[in-house]
Amino acid sequence: MNGKVVILGAGAVGTTVATYLKRHTCHEVTVFSSDTHTAYSQCGIPFVLEGVIHDFPDLIVRPLDAFVDMGIDLHLETTVKRIDANSQKVISDAGIFEYDHLVIATGSLPFVPPIDGKELDGVFTLHTLSDGMKINSSINDASRVLIIGAGGIGTELAGSLAVRGITVTMVEALPQVLPLTIDPDMALLVQQHLNSLGVLVVTGAHVNSINGKQHVRSVSVQGDTVPTGIVPSDVVIVATGLKPLSGIARDAGYKIGITGGIVTDEHLRVSADGGILDNVYAGGECAEVKEFVTCSPFISRLGSAARRMARVIGENIAGQDAVYPPTLSPNVVVVGEVTAGSVGITSHTATLNDISVVCGISEGRTRAGYFPGGSQINAKLIFSNRRLVGAQVVAREGVKERIDALSLAIRMGATVDDLLEWETAYAPSVSMIIDPVTFAADDAKMKMDGLA
Amino acid sequence: MNGKVVILGAGAVGTTVATYLKRHTCHEVTVFSSDTHTAYSQCGIPFVLEGVIHDFPDLIVRPLDAFVDMGIDLHLETTVKRIDANSQKVISDAGIFEYDHLVIATGSLPFVPPIDGKELDGVFTLHTLSDGMKINSSINDASRVLIIGAGGIGTELAGSLAVRGITVTMVEALPQVLPLTIDPDMALLVQQHLNSLGVLVVTGAHVNSINGKQHVRSVSVQGDTVPTGIVPSDVVIVATGLKPLSGIARDAGYKIGITGGIVTDEHLRVSADGGILDNVYAGGECAEVKEFVTCSPFISRLGSAARRMARVIGENIAGQDAVYPPTLSPNVVVVGEVTAGSVGITSHTATLNDISVVCGISEGRTRAGYFPGGSQINAKLIFSNRRLVGAQVVAREGVKERIDALSLAIRMGATVDDLLEWETAYAPSVSMIIDPVTFAADDAKMKMDGLA
Repeated sequence: MNGKVVILGAGAVGTTVATYLKRHTCHEVTVFSSDTHTAYSQCGIPFVLEGVIHDFPDLIVRPLDAFVDMGIDLHLETTVKRIDANSQKVISDAGIFEYDHLVIATGSLPFVPPIDGKELDGVFTLHTLSDGMKINSSINDASRVLIIGAGGIGTELAGSLAVRGITVTMVEALPQVLPLTIDPDMALLVQQHLNSLGVLVVTGAHVNSINGKQHVRSVSVQGDTVPTGIVPSDVVIVATGLKPLSGIARDAGYKIGITGGIVTDEHLRVSADGGILDNVYAGGECAEVKEFVTCSPFISRLGSAARRMARVIGENIAGQDAVYPPTLSPNVVVVGEVTAGSVGITSHTATLNDISVVCGISEGRTRAGYFPGGSQINAKLIFSNRRLVGAQVVAREGVKERIDALSLAIRMGATVDDLLEWETAYAPSVSMIIDPVTFAADDAKMKMDGLA
Repeated sequence: MNGKVVILGAGAVGTTVATYLKRHTCHEVTVFSSDTHTAYSQCGIPFVLEGVIHDFPDLIVRPLDAFVDMGIDLHLETTVKRIDANSQKVISDAGIFEYDHLVIATGSLPFVPPIDGKELDGVFTLHTLSDGMKINSSINDASRVLIIGAGGIGTELAGSLAVRGITVTMVEALPQVLPLTIDPDMALLVQQHLNSLGVLVVTGAHVNSINGKQHVRSVSVQGDTVPTGIVPSDVVIVATGLKPLSGIARDAGYKIGITGGIVTDEHLRVSADGGILDNVYAGGECAEVKEFVTCSPFISRLGSAARRMARVIGENIAGQDAVYPPTLSPNVVVVGEVTAGSVGITSHTATLNDISVVCGISEGRTRAGYFPGGSQINAKLIFSNRRLVGAQVVAREGVKERIDALSLAIRMGATVDDLLEWETAYAPSVSMIIDPVTFAADDAKMKMDGLA
């Protein structure tokens, strides 16, 4: 095989597809990105702002030379204006490029609501390495930072800046932090930890305006339950979600789904009026895939999902028949010292989808009671027709791995009885004799059987 | 229900059955134990010897009063001489007790091979809290300790004493440490860590004699590959395995299996010549159950398994129909700073059982490469007919939870393809983008498909 592959985007999907193709095929590979940097860890940015990671270049996991050495034709800071689907060409700042296979991995952009004053100096979003650098050079220990939005990025950032000693206020329109990924009872644990770090969390509140002449000076916040107030702020970070960068695909005639992402089939191929295209793929945050539990259209924000999609796209371009199955996209957010993880659907999503659920909860410790250094751990399991459909865990350790286990449990169709037969390991320094997850399953089963 | 329940043994099974029955039934409950203490964490003893846990009483998870307050008739330091099965009576130091239900949870005793000098002062086994106290008062920072046996107890103890600064030699007859639970390649990682802590590990070697007049002075070690030598030793700890305390059951006419444990059915009932007995149960380290992968007779050493068996016995005495399914008994051993975990069968057990297997291995990190505090992590997955039958993980963090996930995977019948579809969560402070377990599955699949 010796065709031309053009990849739009040099994030996790773009670079992984390019690398895969260079390793396993003889294709010419050209990659475009509007970003200044590539192959860096977006998820690591809050840790640099916190001071745990020394500096931003530490987040670059692969130097540019590595791509050049592999023979990848990489164009950074380059805008792709248009895809000419008929002639199979991409029109960019750097010229016109033909393709045999096209991969759209343009990612996402922060969504900024139309708030008065959003263009003032000192107002940022946090998406790229450059964003992180700008924020870093704008804050100092005396800064008062206001974060709009308490999703994953907002809460991680609030935790990081608070640990650094900065005065942080976080404003969230919905009545809880992390509203898309965990239930209110579990979110309260995260909110309490943020409070303990000194973060003022204002939920159920809107930002009316960002105030200042050239530079932000304050933010007007209107609460559902709190009085309207003016919060003095030196820096404002807008973290109100992301929108898929799918415009260029839409302009080319490719189908866009209700999520705003590019519709893909199980091979991650895009479709147009004439049906599914055999040589155009989309992956990552610009692509709409299927969620595992509900089978609804879904956009996965995860680097791990991106890597899997890239592998599927790479294998398909290499002539294999690879499939990207519906995704659970298990999620962990590290807020200060606490990790909050979730997989599958929340109670709220269940209600939206008319799925009747029974929840089991438990509170335990990550190590034997007498062992130093352990942490409180809270687990919540969500069952529908006795089958696990969602799980949430909050603790200072052991969260990611338990969420992983429960991700497998959901995918394999585990019932509450399977979870009760599940044997877990024990040593005083790393666990309780019976894992807290087992107790949560026990709680759910008692409710199902009408015993609780 | 208002019958008489007699329980032989006040370990994890005995106390849990007693507590369950007092909570859920009106039975009279009498418990006998030859031990001086009860309701303590056996697994915590090495950590007291290490100095991580302050003192032995910290390991007592429930005070004696708690059992008295519940109305449990608890007899410590009491020998039960005989079960009279016909008249349903137990004959003990403390008198004769009738029973309607009998629970045999006598546990195990250390197996000490017939070595010359094993009765000298300074030679110990480590099984009870009292054993721990005796060892603790016999060692000081100048001690030279020799441990015979590199199983779970021996390696944990070697790690603990080495961390405390004591000179430790460990002698193991088989060619690797942890021979019953992990494969040689994974065991080497544990052995290297022991070496790094200053422990001299001599594998493939036998102890010919323990030498001294009244008190041990040295140990004669004869190696397969090392020259015979005299190792000066102030303290010798024999950790060459455990044997089930099933003599009293054998004498009562109950069936004993090839493991030396009391044969139980799926309800954990024992059997005699006349068949299964409806009112006599055995659980814990004196009971023979079924191993999950091979369905072979098996004795589980785990406190977590004991707790599950106790629950099943308690429910059955309470009139329910509870079943103890074949067990995987996932296992973790904490050796210094390293945790070694395993579940299912090893390559060696597979060979013994004529099971043909394919193994996948991987080496990764527990956190993003740029994130401080992470650890090397090694994973090994063992497949038979593409189905997971065993797993081993060695690292400084995240071992127990991964072993738990793989315990569930084996129980649910996960194939290599299921493990490759398994989605894991990612945050730089708690994981790699793709979990090392996934890479091990990938490695195994490549071997199965003839690509590696």
